[in-house]
Amino acid sequence: MGGLTHFDGDGAAHMVDVGDKPETERRAVAEGRIFMTAETLALIRAGTAKKGDVTGVARLAGIMAAKRTADLIPLCHPLALTRVAVDLVPEDDPPALCITATCALRGRTGVEMEALTAVSVAALTVYDMVKAVDPAMVIGDIRLVAKNGGRRAVGTPDRAG
Amino acid sequence: MGGLTHFDGDGAAHMVDVGDKPETERRAVAEGRIFMTAETLALIRAGTAKKGDVTGVARLAGIMAAKRTADLIPLCHPLALTRVAVDLVPEDDPPALCITATCALRGRTGVEMEALTAVSVAALTVYDMVKAVDPAMVIGDIRLVAKNGGRRAVGTPDRAG
Amino acid sequence: MGGLTHFDGDGAAHMVDVGDKPETERRAVAEGRIFMTAETLALIRAGTAKKGDVTGVARLAGIMAAKRTADLIPLCHPLALTRVAVDLVPEDDPPALCITATCALRGRTGVEMEALTAVSVAALTVYDMVKAVDPAMVIGDIRLVAKNGGRRAVGTPDRAG
Amino acid sequence: MGGLTHFDGDGAAHMVDVGDKPETERRAVAEGRIFMTAETLALIRAGTAKKGDVTGVARLAGIMAAKRTADLIPLCHPLALTRVAVDLVPEDDPPALCITATCALRGRTGVEMEALTAVSVAALTVYDMVKAVDPAMVIGDIRLVAKNGGRRAVGTPDRAG
Amino acid sequence: MGGLTHFDGDGAAHMVDVGDKPETERRAVAEGRIFMTAETLALIRAGTAKKGDVTGVARLAGIMAAKRTADLIPLCHPLALTRVAVDLVPEDDPPALCITATCALRGRTGVEMEALTAVSVAALTVYDMVKAVDPAMVIGDIRLVAKNGGRRAVGTPDRAG
Amino acid sequence: MGGLTHFDGDGAAHMVDVGDKPETERRAVAEGRIFMTAETLALIRAGTAKKGDVTGVARLAGIMAAKRTADLIPLCHPLALTRVAVDLVPEDDPPALCITATCALRGRTGVEMEALTAVSVAALTVYDMVKAVDPAMVIGDIRLVAKNGGRRAVGTPDRAG
Repeated sequence: MGGLTHFDGDGAAHMVDVGDKPETERRAVAEGRIFMTAETLALIRAGTAKKGDVTGVARLAGIMAAKRTADLIPLCHPLALTRVAVDLVPEDDPPALCITATCALRGRTGVEMEALTAVSVAALTVYDMVKAVDPAMVIGDIRLVAKNGGRRAVGTPDRAG
Repeated sequence: MGGLTHFDGDGAAHMVDVGDKPETERRAVAEGRIFMTAETLALIRAGTAKKGDVTGVARLAGIMAAKRTADLIPLCHPLALTRVAVDLVPEDDPPALCITATCALRGRTGVEMEALTAVSVAALTVYDMVKAVDPAMVIGDIRLVAKNGGRRAVGTPDRAG
Repeated sequence: MGGLTHFDGDGAAHMVDVGDKPETERRAVAEGRIFMTAETLALIRAGTAKKGDVTGVARLAGIMAAKRTADLIPLCHPLALTRVAVDLVPEDDPPALCITATCALRGRTGVEMEALTAVSVAALTVYDMVKAVDPAMVIGDIRLVAKNGGRRAVGTPDRAG
Repeated sequence: MGGLTHFDGDGAAHMVDVGDKPETERRAVAEGRIFMTAETLALIRAGTAKKGDVTGVARLAGIMAAKRTADLIPLCHPLALTRVAVDLVPEDDPPALCITATCALRGRTGVEMEALTAVSVAALTVYDMVKAVDPAMVIGDIRLVAKNGGRRAVGTPDRAG
Repeated sequence: MGGLTHFDGDGAAHMVDVGDKPETERRAVAEGRIFMTAETLALIRAGTAKKGDVTGVARLAGIMAAKRTADLIPLCHPLALTRVAVDLVPEDDPPALCITATCALRGRTGVEMEALTAVSVAALTVYDMVKAVDPAMVIGDIRLVAKNGGRRAVGTPDRAG
Repeated sequence: MGGLTHFDGDGAAHMVDVGDKPETERRAVAEGRIFMTAETLALIRAGTAKKGDVTGVARLAGIMAAKRTADLIPLCHPLALTRVAVDLVPEDDPPALCITATCALRGRTGVEMEALTAVSVAALTVYDMVKAVDPAMVIGDIRLVAKNGGRRAVGTPDRAG
């Protein structure tokens, strides 16, 4: 199947052999957003400052999820991440939290799935904590922002979500 | 913190007490999209029919992730789901796979997080399998479409992602 | 697909809806064997009595695996098992350990997969601990021995493995 | 306990120290079978071609289980697998699916348990999906077929299961 | 073995059959302490108020660990907890964080292991985050404080740790 | 936050970047105790010799938990442990089981959390198996006993628990 390396010549899914790839420093950055009403965003901002730290809980959930990526994504290789950081920043127009995750390791395959998984689970965790007041929140704009250390480097893709 | 039930009076996160809620039939439907080039979508369509079943792998990953929701989302209750179904449908304008997940159980709390988690992980799995040919794919439009069985029923929210 | 309930009308895999099934007492018994040389079996027997308890480790691994069944088998429902017991008995002709697992719960779906998973992982654990002296061991005869509490009761199937 | 390296001098189970072993390319192949009626095998064959892909689901379950081996087998080392492939081939006499798993990594200990676990869970997954029409299926013949990269190489063992 | 219900008549470990127990409201409270220098405690207090929320991270880790209890403790039943709360309170003499966990469910067996696991993992998480400045911290006083809903109610045990 | 490396300049928790640390042989030893009545200790001693092996079950649980450390402790790095050993020794005054865990790997970060987690879960497992006869048991004295291979070596800390 042209280009889809996760399938062999017969179309059967497999976990690609990366044994021959060199060990290099690899790093990936992903981002995404959870859109909400201005009132909900104000509530989260207030909580972070005073009590009820929505972004703190979501940050931890994202970090822990990055470590579970190979458990969740069937054909991902298990990886010994050396770094995970997740950041959540409020944006006003439209009202949203912008979530960025950075993952790194020294290894044979890239860490973009780990970064994308961290962003996704952090966004789901925000949804979970705030859904009682704003069930119409929407998660979007999840994309790979940067990647290096492998054969292909990736800059900022700009197709709209 | 007004309305944010996942925090107690001091702002400390906790897993909300649902012991007094009645056991009812609960069901939630969530959806999301992964946007890609028309060429990538054509590749996935070809694969489903012939060999290299991207949507089949993503469907399974979504179903399995629904069962892991309470492991991933810190304040989610562990739930004994009675049903999970995940559907991936190609759309042409813009080119995307539209992912829908339906979860159900008889219990004391809703299953919207399980449905949203299934959609998110199915989308991440598509990304993983196709990223070699189209790393600029974007995941978005993840939202709750329907929910019933609890205190609040939810219809189709329509805020744009 | 005639009779294969894990696929819907379009052939897509899903986790079957058991929400309408009644909650009943359900119980399943599975068994299997790991075949080895007579010398290896003697080594295990000696260990159990004196030191190096192969069967004790395998029993625990089987019990713990039963609890992980829904994590391992993609379309299995998560279940709150009320009982798991695993037994390993030496047999001489041919030399083998016979492994039996019994699982029970009060719920909406059967526990045969939990019992079969417990047997399989207990057998794999024996293999792991003894493989240094007998890598040619073979695991077989894994079958459902009894099941009750659902629509269909099962007696002892007798097709040979 | 003579030869059983998973127990120390007092017979206590431990996870063997492999810190002094060299890092080498390691590879293992395991196989097994799930025996069924000819009618059941025909149903699976039909499904793979048309709709309801039993072997596709089982293949994925096997791959994912290989990554969980150290969680399941108490004394197995956690390993960063670089490759997992699982194959299911119908056989007619007797009617069965023959399952083969290949695992590889560059590391300090072998991957035979990962390959055996992949075969076992793939077989259990077939059982789960087809049990409604053929609960008397039997899983057997699970054995190590080849192993290299460690101190001991293994060819095809031929003791019957 | 007199009184040890986790072993059968032959001394083999098993997961006790609770299928015949009534479903009742069950609740358990456990507590423990992590002892540290006064300087370390001051650092944690400052962090909670301003930045670097050690107790917030530990609280979440404890809550998530409660949900993993049956994965960690071999003979624990899987339980659908309806409530988990973890509290960390600074104490001055001796300097320590006192950790309290409360778990509840409606079910057939008690939740004391879930509460004790939450306390233990919260304490380990504090250790992890502060070990760079105070590796000599000691975790202790972990005990069951209250339990009700089963056959035996437990008040505050007072044996010293 | 002075010295607390798990928080960045803004006080946000992250998984520390260890990518630049050298790979060295690392080893950590932790210990802890579970205090009980003399009668309970006698029961455990009898069981180990004859039937009902409490310490054998707890040892395995501790070993398996060491492998799950990065799943439990939010900011721990995933590590490929090369060795885990857990020992439980009865002590008479006061009556207790003393639990020691040794972990090792060749890697970029220390294994003290793995050793402390193994001790904690082994102690919890003893509690679980014996709680029916002695619910007032107390777990304490959990501390790091030795650590080497990193920048800082640690001898035996002697602050009382």
